[in-house]
Amino acid sequence: MTTSLIILAAGKGTRMNSELPKVLHPIAGEPMLIHAITAGETLDPARTVVVAGHGAEAVTAAVHAHDATAKVVVQEEQLGTAHAVAQARAALEGVGGTAIVLYGDTPFVSAETLARLTQAARDHDVAVLGFEAADPGRYGRLVMAGDTLERIVEYKDATEAERAITLCNSGVIACDAALLFDLIDAVGNDNASGEYYLTDIIGLARARGLTATAVTCDEAETLGVNSRAQLAEAEAAFQARARAALLEDGVTLQAPDTVFLARDTVIGRDAHVEPHVVFGPGVTVESGATIRAFSHLEGCHVSRGATVGPYARLRPGAELAENTRVGNFVEIKNATVAEGAKVNHLSYIGDAFVGARANIGAGTITCNYDGVMKHHTHIGADAFIGSNTMLVAPVHVGAGAMTGSGSVITSDVEDDALALARAPQVEKPGMARKLMDMLRAKKARSQRSS
Amino acid sequence: MTTSLIILAAGKGTRMNSELPKVLHPIAGEPMLIHAITAGETLDPARTVVVAGHGAEAVTAAVHAHDATAKVVVQEEQLGTAHAVAQARAALEGVGGTAIVLYGDTPFVSAETLARLTQAARDHDVAVLGFEAADPGRYGRLVMAGDTLERIVEYKDATEAERAITLCNSGVIACDAALLFDLIDAVGNDNASGEYYLTDIIGLARARGLTATAVTCDEAETLGVNSRAQLAEAEAAFQARARAALLEDGVTLQAPDTVFLARDTVIGRDAHVEPHVVFGPGVTVESGATIRAFSHLEGCHVSRGATVGPYARLRPGAELAENTRVGNFVEIKNATVAEGAKVNHLSYIGDAFVGARANIGAGTITCNYDGVMKHHTHIGADAFIGSNTMLVAPVHVGAGAMTGSGSVITSDVEDDALALARAPQVEKPGMARKLMDMLRAKKARSQRSS
Amino acid sequence: MTTSLIILAAGKGTRMNSELPKVLHPIAGEPMLIHAITAGETLDPARTVVVAGHGAEAVTAAVHAHDATAKVVVQEEQLGTAHAVAQARAALEGVGGTAIVLYGDTPFVSAETLARLTQAARDHDVAVLGFEAADPGRYGRLVMAGDTLERIVEYKDATEAERAITLCNSGVIACDAALLFDLIDAVGNDNASGEYYLTDIIGLARARGLTATAVTCDEAETLGVNSRAQLAEAEAAFQARARAALLEDGVTLQAPDTVFLARDTVIGRDAHVEPHVVFGPGVTVESGATIRAFSHLEGCHVSRGATVGPYARLRPGAELAENTRVGNFVEIKNATVAEGAKVNHLSYIGDAFVGARANIGAGTITCNYDGVMKHHTHIGADAFIGSNTMLVAPVHVGAGAMTGSGSVITSDVEDDALALARAPQVEKPGMARKLMDMLRAKKARSQRSS
Repeated sequence: MTTSLIILAAGKGTRMNSELPKVLHPIAGEPMLIHAITAGETLDPARTVVVAGHGAEAVTAAVHAHDATAKVVVQEEQLGTAHAVAQARAALEGVGGTAIVLYGDTPFVSAETLARLTQAARDHDVAVLGFEAADPGRYGRLVMAGDTLERIVEYKDATEAERAITLCNSGVIACDAALLFDLIDAVGNDNASGEYYLTDIIGLARARGLTATAVTCDEAETLGVNSRAQLAEAEAAFQARARAALLEDGVTLQAPDTVFLARDTVIGRDAHVEPHVVFGPGVTVESGATIRAFSHLEGCHVSRGATVGPYARLRPGAELAENTRVGNFVEIKNATVAEGAKVNHLSYIGDAFVGARANIGAGTITCNYDGVMKHHTHIGADAFIGSNTMLVAPVHVGAGAMTGSGSVITSDVEDDALALARAPQVEKPGMARKLMDMLRAKKARSQRSS
Repeated sequence: MTTSLIILAAGKGTRMNSELPKVLHPIAGEPMLIHAITAGETLDPARTVVVAGHGAEAVTAAVHAHDATAKVVVQEEQLGTAHAVAQARAALEGVGGTAIVLYGDTPFVSAETLARLTQAARDHDVAVLGFEAADPGRYGRLVMAGDTLERIVEYKDATEAERAITLCNSGVIACDAALLFDLIDAVGNDNASGEYYLTDIIGLARARGLTATAVTCDEAETLGVNSRAQLAEAEAAFQARARAALLEDGVTLQAPDTVFLARDTVIGRDAHVEPHVVFGPGVTVESGATIRAFSHLEGCHVSRGATVGPYARLRPGAELAENTRVGNFVEIKNATVAEGAKVNHLSYIGDAFVGARANIGAGTITCNYDGVMKHHTHIGADAFIGSNTMLVAPVHVGAGAMTGSGSVITSDVEDDALALARAPQVEKPGMARKLMDMLRAKKARSQRSS
Repeated sequence: MTTSLIILAAGKGTRMNSELPKVLHPIAGEPMLIHAITAGETLDPARTVVVAGHGAEAVTAAVHAHDATAKVVVQEEQLGTAHAVAQARAALEGVGGTAIVLYGDTPFVSAETLARLTQAARDHDVAVLGFEAADPGRYGRLVMAGDTLERIVEYKDATEAERAITLCNSGVIACDAALLFDLIDAVGNDNASGEYYLTDIIGLARARGLTATAVTCDEAETLGVNSRAQLAEAEAAFQARARAALLEDGVTLQAPDTVFLARDTVIGRDAHVEPHVVFGPGVTVESGATIRAFSHLEGCHVSRGATVGPYARLRPGAELAENTRVGNFVEIKNATVAEGAKVNHLSYIGDAFVGARANIGAGTITCNYDGVMKHHTHIGADAFIGSNTMLVAPVHVGAGAMTGSGSVITSDVEDDALALARAPQVEKPGMARKLMDMLRAKKARSQRSS
């Protein structure tokens, strides 16, 4: 069966107090709109249409960065949800099947819920997603008669009896696409706000003798974001779920509340993550690896048996092979560290290959940038890079080669060779004391004269 | 109308289990006493009198560091709150107006509450600050008759009916200064503790036919600190409020609970703060700047479009201009980084000026200390400082100049010049292998012989 | 009176989803089994017997690493708790006295509780540890008649009346050792699971006219660990208790929830710990020391008046004397830093002695590893090590000596001498501009040709 997605993403989000359109505010480092689209993608939609409005240009860019085939239509005036959905009509021309209306600021509807909703929309004419609200407050209420959804009543229009209903409207609707647009044509704006409400299609459908039903989900799935505080709550909810899933998968998180994950973080069974670790997007950690405290990982891969941190920063393109060690105050970017190699202290390894079992001394830097372009450093297997070696790229250090501490290596080093670039040590007896005496006298003079 | 503050800060705070006087224990890096004084300062007091006792010398120093004009009087013996207030009499001679009695260990009474209390003390003879206690426990109870405060009854002296009262005494009192001291003269110490209680002035005032009333505030404002655990709770309460205020102002805090703020932290709208960031005192971050994870900022200014961290430490005097980048394992102290300049990795920039668009290579250090004095480093616009350059201050690197990786720069470098201080690279073929063989043999020998 | 411990540690822990035996999963960096043993050790047991099963080899190694005298017996098949205890019989031959049965996955039973339980087992024939469950759920219930424990009934066998009991079975039992094994011989496996249940000994004892009683403890002490989520909860419970104990002892933890402690962490009164600090095993911090944010300490000692961090990593063997300072991005390993010495920035000090009042410049590295062996660096009192000095160990820098910035020091330096190893600075006027122009032209060419 064909499905398509209509994702409403036009709102300004005034309470966000931001220049950024609300739906682009990030959860786990990714616009909340993309979370909503990604959930919908589990239905394998024939077409995805995003209805943008405020900040449409930025929204379009974000959508296309995620899915170049998605259509973005612009709702020039915000005249209500039915009007927003109507903007998707042309973009869905000829697609047919079931249309699902989602919201760019409601990022957590689950794939399982969407599958149930879609099924319900095949068994009935219209299906609405509802939730049992702990505190129904001013949500719209779903008025049911058995399995049949009779109508959706806004809180302000509800009778006392209706206000006692706890099954509330999430706004998410599934319906045959042609029928959806047909019903929307009939929606009026004769209400206090002068807006066209999507919820009105239920009453219209029922009046035509069509069937409607509700599918319910956990209230947490319908969490909407309207302020920075709610954004922080949504982030916390996302993180709590992601951490629980890792624990279930057999990952040890010593202090789950201090570990931050991205939507695509993959961590293998029996990996161990210490407190205070941040995972950005694109990270894979294999079974049995250890990520120590205060580490920060993005776009990287950590293999079995590797130990990272504390205070290691792995940037995009960092590829750590098995049994490698990356230690404190070390940054790795766009570099492969081959099996058993060690980069233990205070180093920057960028645009590089570090050979198997190589030992990179403290303070080593790959000088990869000449002010204009980036260049590559190759370090051979079993090489021993002395502390504070500058590797001026492009440069190739051979297998088994060694560099002297404090050397600036500008030319390639052959296999098994020792390269040194070092001034001879000179000692001036008594000079330290004389210098200090002189400096102290100078300071005393300057203090007297001021 | 004239107001003055009397802040009681004489207590030992035995349960703090500390050498430090209780009121000097910090919340958000600042003595809790200073929080109390700062709240009172919103009334624009004609005089502030702090009544010190235990650790009076340290308390005096802390008060004067904050406000050199504040008076500190010493209560030699701790004979009760009325006795403590009495110590302020001479210091308030001739000031007149309304006196407000605050407590150095009750740091969170809000400006708004104090304004209401002060107004109440103008409409009545005495005004007391009360709060509806969730768990009234052993607090003193405010016995009201309509708007009139009849008396304050200590828990242990209260009848069952009085114990059922949930409006409790915060201890904060506002009263005409002359009247206050007059009433205090009448307070006796004929009670179980043999102490002079400030609360007794309500009964005395009512007995004279004077009026008393109560103003209520949120219980959280009256939170007192008596132990390290309560200090940690007060810190948490402070942080929660400060984070919520930032969210309201349009700042994104991805994980608010992991971000620590100071009382004076200013962060602009649409700035983005990642998890695990600590703000010490004196930090201003402009709109749209990004503070990445694991950063630590004190006494610094971050301009629009700047990116800080992860793992950046900005110390007092760090001034980052627009679109600058300060990256991982970088410390900036007393230094200006001009527009568009980058200090991305493993560097220490202290007592320096970094020109616009300059690129500071990894491992660069401004050698600002000669063992006796600190000196300044100037780096011109568009300069390219090679990795691991030592800039031995005082030194001036010209605009557009470049330094070679690993150079120790002790003399000024002209505009557009290249400065190098580098030993030539020497290669000894096969020597790495020989050295390793030799070292391994030596180790084997030493192991055999041990 | 003689006591002995029988610690059941044979379970697989399927829900842990791990290759590691359940009881070896760490809490505060130490296997939970060791927490259980350590609690039992407060009874000064004549013998400790651990009953291992799944992963017996690894369990044995962990037990012996903690206590080489402990006996480990292997339960080849897991036939129930009575069967497990029976495996300890031979190992306890001739010991006599009271045997206490503990569980390797129940790490938090307190010393005080165990003392009460042991006493109860001397006043009665069998003593069981129970707890008042907030939610009794499916726990076994303790059926009491006054002080007498009549029997333990499993939830599934319990009547409605018995299910209403909230006093639940922890599984911990104390009993005369000879009697224990005698009763166990009588336990059958005629039940749904076909297992031999230790709890059956209560009914057997009562049937013989022996006395049984229950001792109760806080439910938190009986917390068992069956999944990674419960492991994280156990860690959180441990940390909460450890933090509260430090606060009680007069330590300031600005943000207790962000500080992680080990079982043996010792921190003195009036020490101050900022947010986001991790203490591994073996750390002692003296009174009045300050541990700043983002620091990581293991196996080290910090003396009075020392300041550590932010971003300091102290590894095993770091010994900081009074009034030392170790600053940001600094790693100290197996090194003594003598009184008043400073290592403020971006340094690695390993296998070294730093003399009193010495100043270690930014970027200093002790090159302690030659690829095969580690060597020692000695820095004398009042020495001034210039920034980015490489100290190639073994090397001795004398008292009052000085090294020039960027020097590689391979030979010893005499007291008061100045050692330099530095290439002269050469300046090539205009060359930076020419180089940049050349590089930009080259880049433009490569872009055109691609």
